[in-house]
Amino acid sequence: VARLQQQLDVTRKLSLTIVKPLQAEDFVVQPIEDVSPPKWHLGHTTWFFEQFLLQPFLPNYKPFHADFSFLFNSYYESVGKRVLRGTRGNMTRPSTKEVLNYRAYVDEHLQLLFESDVAQDEWMPLIELGIHHEQQHQELLYADIKYILGHNPLFPAYALTSIEDGLSTGPHGTLDISEGLYTIGYQGDGFHFDNEKGVHQVFLSKARVNQGLISNGEYLEFLQQGGYRQFEHWLSEGWTWVQQGNTKPLYWHEVEGEWMEYGLSGLQALNMEAPVKHISFFEADAFAAWRGKRLLSEFEREVLNEKLSNGQLWEWTQNAYLPYPKFDKAPGAIGEYNGKFMINQMVLRGGSIATPTGHYRASYRNFWHTHHQFQFTGIRLAEYC
Amino acid sequence: VARLQQQLDVTRKLSLTIVKPLQAEDFVVQPIEDVSPPKWHLGHTTWFFEQFLLQPFLPNYKPFHADFSFLFNSYYESVGKRVLRGTRGNMTRPSTKEVLNYRAYVDEHLQLLFESDVAQDEWMPLIELGIHHEQQHQELLYADIKYILGHNPLFPAYALTSIEDGLSTGPHGTLDISEGLYTIGYQGDGFHFDNEKGVHQVFLSKARVNQGLISNGEYLEFLQQGGYRQFEHWLSEGWTWVQQGNTKPLYWHEVEGEWMEYGLSGLQALNMEAPVKHISFFEADAFAAWRGKRLLSEFEREVLNEKLSNGQLWEWTQNAYLPYPKFDKAPGAIGEYNGKFMINQMVLRGGSIATPTGHYRASYRNFWHTHHQFQFTGIRLAEYC
Amino acid sequence: VARLQQQLDVTRKLSLTIVKPLQAEDFVVQPIEDVSPPKWHLGHTTWFFEQFLLQPFLPNYKPFHADFSFLFNSYYESVGKRVLRGTRGNMTRPSTKEVLNYRAYVDEHLQLLFESDVAQDEWMPLIELGIHHEQQHQELLYADIKYILGHNPLFPAYALTSIEDGLSTGPHGTLDISEGLYTIGYQGDGFHFDNEKGVHQVFLSKARVNQGLISNGEYLEFLQQGGYRQFEHWLSEGWTWVQQGNTKPLYWHEVEGEWMEYGLSGLQALNMEAPVKHISFFEADAFAAWRGKRLLSEFEREVLNEKLSNGQLWEWTQNAYLPYPKFDKAPGAIGEYNGKFMINQMVLRGGSIATPTGHYRASYRNFWHTHHQFQFTGIRLAEYC
Amino acid sequence: VARLQQQLDVTRKLSLTIVKPLQAEDFVVQPIEDVSPPKWHLGHTTWFFEQFLLQPFLPNYKPFHADFSFLFNSYYESVGKRVLRGTRGNMTRPSTKEVLNYRAYVDEHLQLLFESDVAQDEWMPLIELGIHHEQQHQELLYADIKYILGHNPLFPAYALTSIEDGLSTGPHGTLDISEGLYTIGYQGDGFHFDNEKGVHQVFLSKARVNQGLISNGEYLEFLQQGGYRQFEHWLSEGWTWVQQGNTKPLYWHEVEGEWMEYGLSGLQALNMEAPVKHISFFEADAFAAWRGKRLLSEFEREVLNEKLSNGQLWEWTQNAYLPYPKFDKAPGAIGEYNGKFMINQMVLRGGSIATPTGHYRASYRNFWHTHHQFQFTGIRLAEYC
Repeated sequence: VARLQQQLDVTRKLSLTIVKPLQAEDFVVQPIEDVSPPKWHLGHTTWFFEQFLLQPFLPNYKPFHADFSFLFNSYYESVGKRVLRGTRGNMTRPSTKEVLNYRAYVDEHLQLLFESDVAQDEWMPLIELGIHHEQQHQELLYADIKYILGHNPLFPAYALTSIEDGLSTGPHGTLDISEGLYTIGYQGDGFHFDNEKGVHQVFLSKARVNQGLISNGEYLEFLQQGGYRQFEHWLSEGWTWVQQGNTKPLYWHEVEGEWMEYGLSGLQALNMEAPVKHISFFEADAFAAWRGKRLLSEFEREVLNEKLSNGQLWEWTQNAYLPYPKFDKAPGAIGEYNGKFMINQMVLRGGSIATPTGHYRASYRNFWHTHHQFQFTGIRLAEYC
Repeated sequence: VARLQQQLDVTRKLSLTIVKPLQAEDFVVQPIEDVSPPKWHLGHTTWFFEQFLLQPFLPNYKPFHADFSFLFNSYYESVGKRVLRGTRGNMTRPSTKEVLNYRAYVDEHLQLLFESDVAQDEWMPLIELGIHHEQQHQELLYADIKYILGHNPLFPAYALTSIEDGLSTGPHGTLDISEGLYTIGYQGDGFHFDNEKGVHQVFLSKARVNQGLISNGEYLEFLQQGGYRQFEHWLSEGWTWVQQGNTKPLYWHEVEGEWMEYGLSGLQALNMEAPVKHISFFEADAFAAWRGKRLLSEFEREVLNEKLSNGQLWEWTQNAYLPYPKFDKAPGAIGEYNGKFMINQMVLRGGSIATPTGHYRASYRNFWHTHHQFQFTGIRLAEYC
Repeated sequence: VARLQQQLDVTRKLSLTIVKPLQAEDFVVQPIEDVSPPKWHLGHTTWFFEQFLLQPFLPNYKPFHADFSFLFNSYYESVGKRVLRGTRGNMTRPSTKEVLNYRAYVDEHLQLLFESDVAQDEWMPLIELGIHHEQQHQELLYADIKYILGHNPLFPAYALTSIEDGLSTGPHGTLDISEGLYTIGYQGDGFHFDNEKGVHQVFLSKARVNQGLISNGEYLEFLQQGGYRQFEHWLSEGWTWVQQGNTKPLYWHEVEGEWMEYGLSGLQALNMEAPVKHISFFEADAFAAWRGKRLLSEFEREVLNEKLSNGQLWEWTQNAYLPYPKFDKAPGAIGEYNGKFMINQMVLRGGSIATPTGHYRASYRNFWHTHHQFQFTGIRLAEYC
Repeated sequence: VARLQQQLDVTRKLSLTIVKPLQAEDFVVQPIEDVSPPKWHLGHTTWFFEQFLLQPFLPNYKPFHADFSFLFNSYYESVGKRVLRGTRGNMTRPSTKEVLNYRAYVDEHLQLLFESDVAQDEWMPLIELGIHHEQQHQELLYADIKYILGHNPLFPAYALTSIEDGLSTGPHGTLDISEGLYTIGYQGDGFHFDNEKGVHQVFLSKARVNQGLISNGEYLEFLQQGGYRQFEHWLSEGWTWVQQGNTKPLYWHEVEGEWMEYGLSGLQALNMEAPVKHISFFEADAFAAWRGKRLLSEFEREVLNEKLSNGQLWEWTQNAYLPYPKFDKAPGAIGEYNGKFMINQMVLRGGSIATPTGHYRASYRNFWHTHHQFQFTGIRLAEYC
């Protein structure tokens, strides 16, 4: 319990640390539907604890504000009405200050819950889920803050030093996977999401996998040799996406003939050694095709997890995000956590620089739609042999 | 000159007074393309003086920031590139504080211009234009602030007392216009916009005009008797607009069977005596048809101006916003002020509670598209007789 | 009566003559919402007679098919449900042959009505309206057929000789209008639409009007001198329309450096002497601005009607399509004929080569939205003096 | 060779047989982008033979018409420009008659190719591909014809007897699959598509599979018990799709309280015993969730293929359409056949009543997007055990 309480404390504080460099105005906006205002993330992660912990378990708990459930619910249909996702950025009230008060209020009451007589085995798993839920939003916070500042014509820096410093492709060699049956899915007894459950056997073919991620230099070569003008590398939907004007990684800018990249510390010359990031599945797949290679399967990535460097960039895999055999969602609102998104998205593995310490696991399954570039995504290649 | 300098001072200060009740977050957002962030209005009105006064006329003037011309240009094609209108609400930087610094910087340099030797007849007309330009944005500020707060699920008040207090329909009688030729257009020698020029004769038929505006109670009757369900009152495009879900004035809400209205001081019971406001041309026209009456022509409104109460609500007229005979736009960027919008909009007359003192004239022509509800608009009826 | 019966006969036959050169497939399609399938026009004009003449007036009339009222109603809300306009082109059934049977059936029963004892003064005005309604659709038929064939990659000809042969700009001189009051609106006792009624006085300024229409050669000069790249000539909404890719008259094509025009007799070299046609209001207005002139008002055009050549191209005027003073729409479905479209469209005058003989009058008011190019539209210039 | 020549003959004739009941108008329209005009299918399948067989292999072959490659190319980027997919329905020319002439011309020249000295091993595989390509379009022809007639307000019948007669759910029992490794992919030496290649091992869990398809009666129960109003059964994107108004199988209609279904022989009372058809993946998945079951995997379906009835309805599987290990696309245009569509679609197995005889195989992988209803799709359930 004490460890969990401390983990909760660390996690709750980290969210505040992440938003510290922001100015008041940065907390509010939502430039595209997928990018939520930082203020909203702060409120929503707090709402999760109020909704699923304090309201059901803490005796006599009085909600901070009657309307906040409506304001900060993200997608839980079971929990009632909610603000339409695309209009989060219009909500100037409650102010950031009020949201911070909401956080403090809920944090205090969570302490009361820890000190209470309520049977721990009922609510402890939900505290743990709440922590991991907030960690996921911390990763989103970094991506969304970067989007908001990186799409401002002034290209303001978030901070002079950041999680992006020291990002590296890793070693240049390859690793082999032998043909055979492998066990996939979470097998321990620690925390894990329902989408990792359903341990099962998967048969893999012999394959060779790159130890390093693809670098900016390598990706620039693809671009400069016409990669975005040659349909033959692209999936049909990817080619349509390119025709709509997507012809470079999200934060690359060609300024007077020189390639620059916007990073959390501002606009800078493109670092050719660093791994290419903020690319869509379409781009990762086209790059692999151009190279005559392929992306890894999520199972290969899981099997090799200990031998590869993690926590750099989320690596697009060639797998659709679908349920494992015997996947079964939890009853009630918590059951909406993962299962209902298992369609038309691709799995990413490996964690990223924006992933909080301790959040990632070998069996962890991240997922995004094929056109999304705004997460910290990269490319790792493989081939059958 | 001294009078102008004082008028400038009053106007510049009024903008700051209007935004005083706002919280930091309220300055940033743009819930729909037509509603600009308050911060943007503060910057844009300042940019106008920098662009058209300080840069051309003040010797050795150094712009406050190289990028602000790009950031705060609204629609002047002549002046170069600009931020796309629909993305104003994504610009969290410059902060409101920086924009206020920008205002102070420009205000100081305008003082220097007043004190300089530069020939006054060249720049004084542009100062005057800048003042009237800022006054127009003050009216927009009220409308946009109301939209931002009035679309927040918490319905926060802007201020306990506001320009909306004391709004009234005016007397109940009618006024007659005799058939004959009338002279239309601005004939004085004071400030006026180019769209009022082109003094010309217009022949009017005999008509009878309501002295009062239509009240909320009268409009509610239209609604409750099925006005929004009966196609026969509506223009074809208006009926399409109704089918899209527009079935009441913008800030009306039916809460548990009772009609409420959001106003600058919060959500309150609908005041049946007050004039109906925030309605589109489509609604004004349909209401008139339902009553077997019609809207005034802009010429009738101009002729009767002194006999009618002004400064309550902008009154939709039955005239399209088109150039007067011999209208000629100024050369250069200033020529983009009015002329290029003379299509597919309708004229409004009368001024409103949000119109700054001294801004309105009998010959003043306001204009909006037929579906817009977010301005302070109302209904005055007439009939031929 | 006999004259009317003959006029009906001529009109009903003309529709069939117009579609004679078409192949079976040409009757069905609707490439854009504004362009209806020829088969639909044949059915709809017939439905008008069945709906407003045979059903109310011919004793014991049995409708040809129970569903045809639903299928061929265009926009009359009073008459009940109807096929959505945009889906007319999906209706492969009834076949053209069935529609022709429908026409024959209704024509026969109209003869019975002529031979019947039913009081003539009740239905004769509606026969007349039906004739003029069908004439309007004959003009649309030409425009729609041209659109369908002219947007086919094979550019098939409609016919070797057509209404487009012999089109000319007319003489080169100018005509003057004196300042003063003029009477506007239909004053005779023949057929006219409700939108021409409301005879009233209009005061016109002194003006000089071109006798001839603008030629292809003149318009090409505008294009080649950068007219579509210079924002200063365009209304703001027009400039947006240009940015969307509209940079030439509808049927102009640059083929290997040479300007061609698709006409009803196929793709041919652009005839520099012929009047420019198929242009939008935005283009007409921008061309006038580029020339330092203006379009005529609809009142000037009406006053000068006898002195100008008519029946060449519909001339965009500078007037919005709005009701005349004392305009009053008829009760019931017939009242939906004109009035409800009196918003956000511009008036055209003059008639065109596609207008059936006898259909046009000096007081005739045609109207289209500002972006429409697909009608037989042209440019006549004027200036104040 | 003789067998292939006969197969070609049978296939080419079958296309004509399918369109025989159509009227001239039915050949032209494209009510939604996914539904192509029957005329286009006839031209496109012919173009395939001209493009890939006659032009490269038949000496001195003269194309039927210079523009037909542009007109009838579907999606082959390698082959040059093409008519945009969404505008196929605007092409009234060439007429159906000309397209039939095109078919005859190409058929004759294919005979010449058979009689020629050109080395058979080069072109025979492409003839075979052309046959299977045309068979795929025959299935589409049925679906598209049904869509065109089934969306006509008159609900015309295609034919009194059709492929839909005698459709049945099959037996009611279940079949078991044992846990273990199975070999997947095409292993014979006959014709197969590239997407079936890459024979590989797949580990399956123990499962129980329904022998019969879900019936209309069973599906109606889902609908009547609120299946379309209960979010908990639906994937998130599926629920969005339901909110857009999709609340029943494509051709179901509730007419005065009774459920009817449009079929190729017209509108009829819903047959409760027949299998439910024309449902989207979202519906199949939600139905399975409501029942506490799941859809089969494509591998289970392949393993059980001989024990299940085929050729009834395409069964949605729970697998995304992705490449098998070692999948490699052919060079050139033929390589665009399958691979580039391997994203964001789901696999269907089992064949349907619209699938031509001999076209389906155990390893056959059909694929559609998750919202598509217009194919002959059904539901088979399974569960782990």
